[in-house]
Amino acid sequence: MSDPKQVQPSANQLASKSEGWSALFAEPMSELVKRYTASVFFDQRLWRADIAGSRAHARMLHKVGLLSAEDEAAIQRGLDQIASEIESGQFAWQLDLEDVHLNIEARLTALVGDAGKRLHTGRSRNDQVATDVRLWLRDEIDGISALLQDVQRALLRVAEQNVEVILPGFTHLQVAQPVSFAHHLLAYVEMFQRDGERLADVRRRTNTLPLGAAALAGTSYPLDRAFVARALGMVDAEGNPQICQNSLDAVSDRDFAIEFSAAAALIMVHVSRLSEELIVWMSQNFGFIRIADRFTTGSSIMPQKKNPDVPELARGKTGRVVGHLMALITLMKGQPLAYNKDNQEDKEPLFDTVDTLRDTLRIFAEMIGGQRNPQTGAFEGGITVNAEAMRRAAQRGYATATDLADYLVKKGLPFRDAHETVALAVRIAIERGVDLSALPLEELQRFNPAIEADVFDALSLEGALNARNTLGGTAPAQIRTQIARHRARLGLTAAD
Amino acid sequence: MSDPKQVQPSANQLASKSEGWSALFAEPMSELVKRYTASVFFDQRLWRADIAGSRAHARMLHKVGLLSAEDEAAIQRGLDQIASEIESGQFAWQLDLEDVHLNIEARLTALVGDAGKRLHTGRSRNDQVATDVRLWLRDEIDGISALLQDVQRALLRVAEQNVEVILPGFTHLQVAQPVSFAHHLLAYVEMFQRDGERLADVRRRTNTLPLGAAALAGTSYPLDRAFVARALGMVDAEGNPQICQNSLDAVSDRDFAIEFSAAAALIMVHVSRLSEELIVWMSQNFGFIRIADRFTTGSSIMPQKKNPDVPELARGKTGRVVGHLMALITLMKGQPLAYNKDNQEDKEPLFDTVDTLRDTLRIFAEMIGGQRNPQTGAFEGGITVNAEAMRRAAQRGYATATDLADYLVKKGLPFRDAHETVALAVRIAIERGVDLSALPLEELQRFNPAIEADVFDALSLEGALNARNTLGGTAPAQIRTQIARHRARLGLTAAD
Amino acid sequence: MSDPKQVQPSANQLASKSEGWSALFAEPMSELVKRYTASVFFDQRLWRADIAGSRAHARMLHKVGLLSAEDEAAIQRGLDQIASEIESGQFAWQLDLEDVHLNIEARLTALVGDAGKRLHTGRSRNDQVATDVRLWLRDEIDGISALLQDVQRALLRVAEQNVEVILPGFTHLQVAQPVSFAHHLLAYVEMFQRDGERLADVRRRTNTLPLGAAALAGTSYPLDRAFVARALGMVDAEGNPQICQNSLDAVSDRDFAIEFSAAAALIMVHVSRLSEELIVWMSQNFGFIRIADRFTTGSSIMPQKKNPDVPELARGKTGRVVGHLMALITLMKGQPLAYNKDNQEDKEPLFDTVDTLRDTLRIFAEMIGGQRNPQTGAFEGGITVNAEAMRRAAQRGYATATDLADYLVKKGLPFRDAHETVALAVRIAIERGVDLSALPLEELQRFNPAIEADVFDALSLEGALNARNTLGGTAPAQIRTQIARHRARLGLTAAD
Amino acid sequence: MSDPKQVQPSANQLASKSEGWSALFAEPMSELVKRYTASVFFDQRLWRADIAGSRAHARMLHKVGLLSAEDEAAIQRGLDQIASEIESGQFAWQLDLEDVHLNIEARLTALVGDAGKRLHTGRSRNDQVATDVRLWLRDEIDGISALLQDVQRALLRVAEQNVEVILPGFTHLQVAQPVSFAHHLLAYVEMFQRDGERLADVRRRTNTLPLGAAALAGTSYPLDRAFVARALGMVDAEGNPQICQNSLDAVSDRDFAIEFSAAAALIMVHVSRLSEELIVWMSQNFGFIRIADRFTTGSSIMPQKKNPDVPELARGKTGRVVGHLMALITLMKGQPLAYNKDNQEDKEPLFDTVDTLRDTLRIFAEMIGGQRNPQTGAFEGGITVNAEAMRRAAQRGYATATDLADYLVKKGLPFRDAHETVALAVRIAIERGVDLSALPLEELQRFNPAIEADVFDALSLEGALNARNTLGGTAPAQIRTQIARHRARLGLTAAD
Repeated sequence: MSDPKQVQPSANQLASKSEGWSALFAEPMSELVKRYTASVFFDQRLWRADIAGSRAHARMLHKVGLLSAEDEAAIQRGLDQIASEIESGQFAWQLDLEDVHLNIEARLTALVGDAGKRLHTGRSRNDQVATDVRLWLRDEIDGISALLQDVQRALLRVAEQNVEVILPGFTHLQVAQPVSFAHHLLAYVEMFQRDGERLADVRRRTNTLPLGAAALAGTSYPLDRAFVARALGMVDAEGNPQICQNSLDAVSDRDFAIEFSAAAALIMVHVSRLSEELIVWMSQNFGFIRIADRFTTGSSIMPQKKNPDVPELARGKTGRVVGHLMALITLMKGQPLAYNKDNQEDKEPLFDTVDTLRDTLRIFAEMIGGQRNPQTGAFEGGITVNAEAMRRAAQRGYATATDLADYLVKKGLPFRDAHETVALAVRIAIERGVDLSALPLEELQRFNPAIEADVFDALSLEGALNARNTLGGTAPAQIRTQIARHRARLGLTAAD
Repeated sequence: MSDPKQVQPSANQLASKSEGWSALFAEPMSELVKRYTASVFFDQRLWRADIAGSRAHARMLHKVGLLSAEDEAAIQRGLDQIASEIESGQFAWQLDLEDVHLNIEARLTALVGDAGKRLHTGRSRNDQVATDVRLWLRDEIDGISALLQDVQRALLRVAEQNVEVILPGFTHLQVAQPVSFAHHLLAYVEMFQRDGERLADVRRRTNTLPLGAAALAGTSYPLDRAFVARALGMVDAEGNPQICQNSLDAVSDRDFAIEFSAAAALIMVHVSRLSEELIVWMSQNFGFIRIADRFTTGSSIMPQKKNPDVPELARGKTGRVVGHLMALITLMKGQPLAYNKDNQEDKEPLFDTVDTLRDTLRIFAEMIGGQRNPQTGAFEGGITVNAEAMRRAAQRGYATATDLADYLVKKGLPFRDAHETVALAVRIAIERGVDLSALPLEELQRFNPAIEADVFDALSLEGALNARNTLGGTAPAQIRTQIARHRARLGLTAAD
Repeated sequence: MSDPKQVQPSANQLASKSEGWSALFAEPMSELVKRYTASVFFDQRLWRADIAGSRAHARMLHKVGLLSAEDEAAIQRGLDQIASEIESGQFAWQLDLEDVHLNIEARLTALVGDAGKRLHTGRSRNDQVATDVRLWLRDEIDGISALLQDVQRALLRVAEQNVEVILPGFTHLQVAQPVSFAHHLLAYVEMFQRDGERLADVRRRTNTLPLGAAALAGTSYPLDRAFVARALGMVDAEGNPQICQNSLDAVSDRDFAIEFSAAAALIMVHVSRLSEELIVWMSQNFGFIRIADRFTTGSSIMPQKKNPDVPELARGKTGRVVGHLMALITLMKGQPLAYNKDNQEDKEPLFDTVDTLRDTLRIFAEMIGGQRNPQTGAFEGGITVNAEAMRRAAQRGYATATDLADYLVKKGLPFRDAHETVALAVRIAIERGVDLSALPLEELQRFNPAIEADVFDALSLEGALNARNTLGGTAPAQIRTQIARHRARLGLTAAD
Repeated sequence: MSDPKQVQPSANQLASKSEGWSALFAEPMSELVKRYTASVFFDQRLWRADIAGSRAHARMLHKVGLLSAEDEAAIQRGLDQIASEIESGQFAWQLDLEDVHLNIEARLTALVGDAGKRLHTGRSRNDQVATDVRLWLRDEIDGISALLQDVQRALLRVAEQNVEVILPGFTHLQVAQPVSFAHHLLAYVEMFQRDGERLADVRRRTNTLPLGAAALAGTSYPLDRAFVARALGMVDAEGNPQICQNSLDAVSDRDFAIEFSAAAALIMVHVSRLSEELIVWMSQNFGFIRIADRFTTGSSIMPQKKNPDVPELARGKTGRVVGHLMALITLMKGQPLAYNKDNQEDKEPLFDTVDTLRDTLRIFAEMIGGQRNPQTGAFEGGITVNAEAMRRAAQRGYATATDLADYLVKKGLPFRDAHETVALAVRIAIERGVDLSALPLEELQRFNPAIEADVFDALSLEGALNARNTLGGTAPAQIRTQIARHRARLGLTAAD
């Protein structure tokens, strides 16, 4: 039987990790297991959040009398130094210390002694890591939200210059009705605006404090959780602290990660749709747009190629982000309370999702809207629009057939009869190989005698475009209203 | 070449669907294709929404002068009759008419003639189906939100009766610290509350009007979309109409379906976690709870079995809902604007998700919280708690070891040193095969001389429980506060 | 305390299900739970497999002496009658009897009395359902494999007629090099051939007998499992019985379902790729092909539309099948041994996957390759190819630039230098707005003096096509070899 | 207009990548785009395969007369040097050169001049990368297959020592029937054996040569693809070369990656099931097994904790692998032929899947089966079995009730009647709080008078275990047969 006198506790628990987790363990962790379970190589990116959390925790411990002023000062000073060591790349991350939390805590104790050992009072890694991830993600959400706005601004810039440019609107990739190119781009502005709203909702639920839940049950120390929440900016719109109300839930909840990933997947779905269109529009058979050479690559074998690698890769990266969402859901399925080690697997999918979103949105903003020329202040190098190719394409496919039907309705025909009459007219026109507008008036009148010479206005692309002049329609007047609304929303001034 | 005189339009376009879509088509749709592309067998559940949308559209067409008072009245009368035919099961759904929309429109025209043919003025199936699905989903969200509250109330009822019941809180399924059974249940109340918040966010974005977008580009008729939005209750908290601002986006957007499915997947993840725990708790080695016989089934071969089929099936159904989310995301990935037929595949996953959620939540509310006895008003037949088994389990696994460490910290030891000291004490206790509280005081004092007789209070289950008395902790005082908060939030009165 | 005299067992356990699962249960199953847990409404499609399994089990029970000849004859007779009742729609499926197995067994006992009650000897629903699903899936795999061959035959028919038709081969949807349309179609034949191979592998692992595993541990009756395996055709290529070797694994294994779903997802991925191409090729800007009117639909609002609904819907259904794969994986993740009720959720995804594959493949075979005209024996109504549009498109985009580089390599230039030289030539040609082949010889010689008049052969579409005459290349000679190989593989005769 | 004299091709196309892809490009690639599209930081792990492919290609080019002996020798020499530079960490990977292929080719040209520029003759990166990934994956599959066998051997070692150890077999996590612990472990051997078979199938389809497909259409050089296939070991069981038969398919096919990922997901599903059981078995309420301390970790706050981090993390990593499968499927959905840049996203999921499998299987083999002690040759440090705890658990829950039913059937009762009789007996026993075997004979005879004293053999755990003595059953005799079969299959000798 062991004798407590002989089996002495080590001077610093964390320092002895390589010999065994604690006095309780009969053998040190296997090297294989250390690598398998360690997270320090990917979770070190949480260091700012970890230090911010520790600072707030230390201030609170002092406030409630659990830490002397000297100890708190030592801790803050030690954390200052650690922050600058990490920032300058001099911090020696150790695999033996598993994760960002123990690495920082061990270094702190090395720097400031017993004060460092007192920092973990009333805290567990379980609530600490949950706090760190939430703080980190909150800030990343802010960054991604700003990039979503950049993409919207880029789309808006191109839209403003193309209000009167007509392309064929497609349904089923078949020519449907003429639409303004600006109107088409504004559809994506709507999508990215919704994405921004979703992120704001996720942010609200992410910005809630788990710290104080300790391992799972709360703590026996009289912590002031509201103080910590306020110190970390975890407050609602009215400035009230947002605090996880149940300790078991606090340490095991990863809803915010899944919810963020779902919002991210939707962003990438929108990116994939836009990418698909850019790729189709750039194919020689469409030729609607070009993107700048610096966003394309060549072929190792075919000398003539300029490939739209960026939108293709972005479309492919949709899979990556969707995969991460599925990973996180699979991870949480069927997990009993409270914290289980499975949860450590939440980080890499989350980190990679954030990186993918950031890179993709940044590159799309520039690829579409160009870069500001520092001399002129103008944006240059965005997509180039071939209005002529768009117009030619809109003239194929009887894009104004619905307008002929509407024309007949206005003459008194029920819509269903008008629809059938026009279907017949289109059939005749196809047989003749001409557009509806190329049929002579007498011919048209054989379909319905109410047709008069003004029908040709309805059958023109411009006529069709201008006719759709209700809220949300493609008429230039409507588009200009929408552009103004978006400009205001995105804080654009006349100079932008 | 066809002669327009000879190729006459049919009297009613929809009536001739079996001969060809319109005069434009050279052959009727293949039977195989009809079945493959028809949605009427599953989308007929949208009928209420479809009729509600048509009523509002007709009122608006009249208001703006596109429909005479007589025609509008005929349409409303026809829709009345159709509603009662469907409700009573007498409506003859036709595969040839593809979907719920054409089935109702064709019947309307059969009932009221030309007025029926005028209903589709300024409308396309593209904006019609988007409107229908949104209206339907909005109401389903309301139903599911109510069921989420029922589950919370059921959990709350059991929690209120078990505030002082102690079970071992687990991390890593290893005994960690004693927690109140009520506290454990309240963790799930938190999860379902968040689910409710997410649904409220989704509802807001779902409750927006696509109608008026027509096929994709808006319409040439002077529609009053705000009137329709108000008529359909698509308004924000201030009563302002919520209207899709871009017609291309309006007809092709399925964000709300994906967002709802993601929220649904999270609900099921929570259900799966609770189910996992119920199943583990019911295994003979735990024996913490029993669920009523009416929620269990037997075995076809083993006469002694009572199996927790309901939680197992619910855990399994998580896969189903997650699969539907994946289906919807895959569906939308890479789709160009505007509407594509792929989108028809949004319905079945969405419908099945709603059904699964509704059934699961309803059954969980009763399985946990029981049914109200109409005589006594009391709830009966919910889960049965075996407090003794929980307590016995909490006494294994050195659940109060952290309390000994906290005790030492309060005596002045830095936390890290206290942790290591207690690890050693646990090792000795394991070797002796006893709990820490069974070590004599002198023995304990060998680990640290500051230990005094009051240590045994800290080492008791009740002592450990009561000690965690900060916000969110497991102390009964905290739990009672939380219960009161939830009761108020859920609108429970003293009688409930 | 209950008295065994008073608590009598019911005469027929299954008959009393509505009063409680067995004498052990204190209350009947809740109606809600019955509906939630019952599978009879979807698993009744397993009836043929269930009866086949029972027939084989009964024969074996008799063979090993556990069932008298009279009882076995009664069982076979009863099952005959049940089969004809089900086939004719007269069988009364009962929700109270949960599933296909208990429905059939209860009816059997009603028909033949005690003999029916002896059928379940040495068997449990756990091994019974596993056997049924495997038998059912095995036969469905055979059906789907045949349909995969039909699709390949259809592609092959179109390919044979289009060996010399040139379209632009794309990479990145940019014109890359001219390819034969037949070659393009044969790429899909390769994919569907691989799909067939995968299905054959899945079939092998599916066709293994769980029966005899009983509930989970095997049985105390001297069953002859090899006899049953042979009777059910569960044998390998050499005719040896294939039997699950571990009873715990036998009842809980759903690998075959997941593996099948993964193979199905790949089939649908291939279908989605082909669909994407058909949709793009049908868009007016490409105009490469048309599909017959009976595979298209019109628009409720736009009279001129003919939409490729079938390929779009098929592309969308990819999501459905992928979702089911995800559902099944999520379902099995983390399940302890042996059978858990979660597994009941394996059926609907599997059934819907099979239905989706069958419908999709059948419709694609006809849409691409047409239907056989019973009079002439010729296939009619498949896709229509617009060779002229393809050729025009191939003439855009400098499709033969690589051929110029290859030409230079053959003149002695290192490939990398040749590539760079041609890139420059393309740049000049783009600036002049002409194809490389339209540059005069002297101009070309300025890029490299080794260029001679024969360069124009290399620069022609036919020259480029014919040049790629190694195994797997697009030269007509290669394609004809491949067609012959596929014809032989698919058992096509000269008449087909 | 550019003048060909002035716009000179660069001396080495690859060297000028930073100024623009080729003479065709008007501006260099943006730095942002370089990072976004470059793969060199993750695809450099393909270097061995890339060099092996280049070696074979060069040998073939020489064989068919496209490369002089000197040039080929120079290339082989250059590749030798590059291999040793990479191996020793001295190779300077350049972001500007995008990927592993261009990095190696550029270095080769720097080393051996024009010969290097000739290597890419008749080859494109499209077929090159497809070849590299296949070669790399083939070798990884071999490694993973070996690890799968290691895990099976480990399970087998523990099984051999626990044939007679009885634990309660569970269905629905409720005590079902007694099973041997060895039998339980052998269920996982079956699963991992199936996984091995699946990998062998995937390997067959992976080991097929795309090289020779060039960019998409084949090549105009007379390549000998069979020579290359043989040189790279891409041959079938009979030694025949396996070659992709269609160039468009060859460069765009990623089936093998998806198929591998699906097989990997199933492996992880099995690992997750085993992990779940290990975690449950280690919980204090079960206490069936322990894993060695070196596979566990402690808590930062709770001094008594030893957590089963490894199985938990492995269970969590299931999500990761499943997510990658979903990523790859999403990636390929709807992609038109032939190569698109989306495909570059195939690598990271594939690489991470391989890494996760390798680490997980290696650690599980040791955690379960221990390490070989180099002195004694014995395996030490695997899981520790608590046979007594298992036995105690098996005595709860009426695990032998089925045996009483079977006993009655052997006395002539129909099974269904016997089932009901025993259900009643269990109810009585529960009310008395005793096991069936503790009811006196007279009591049992009240249920059925045919019961005699030998019933108590049937009701013992050993009796029940030994009774299940048919193929696949849990009787020790059966288990020993299975162990012998697996030993032979896995090539274990008496010494192992």
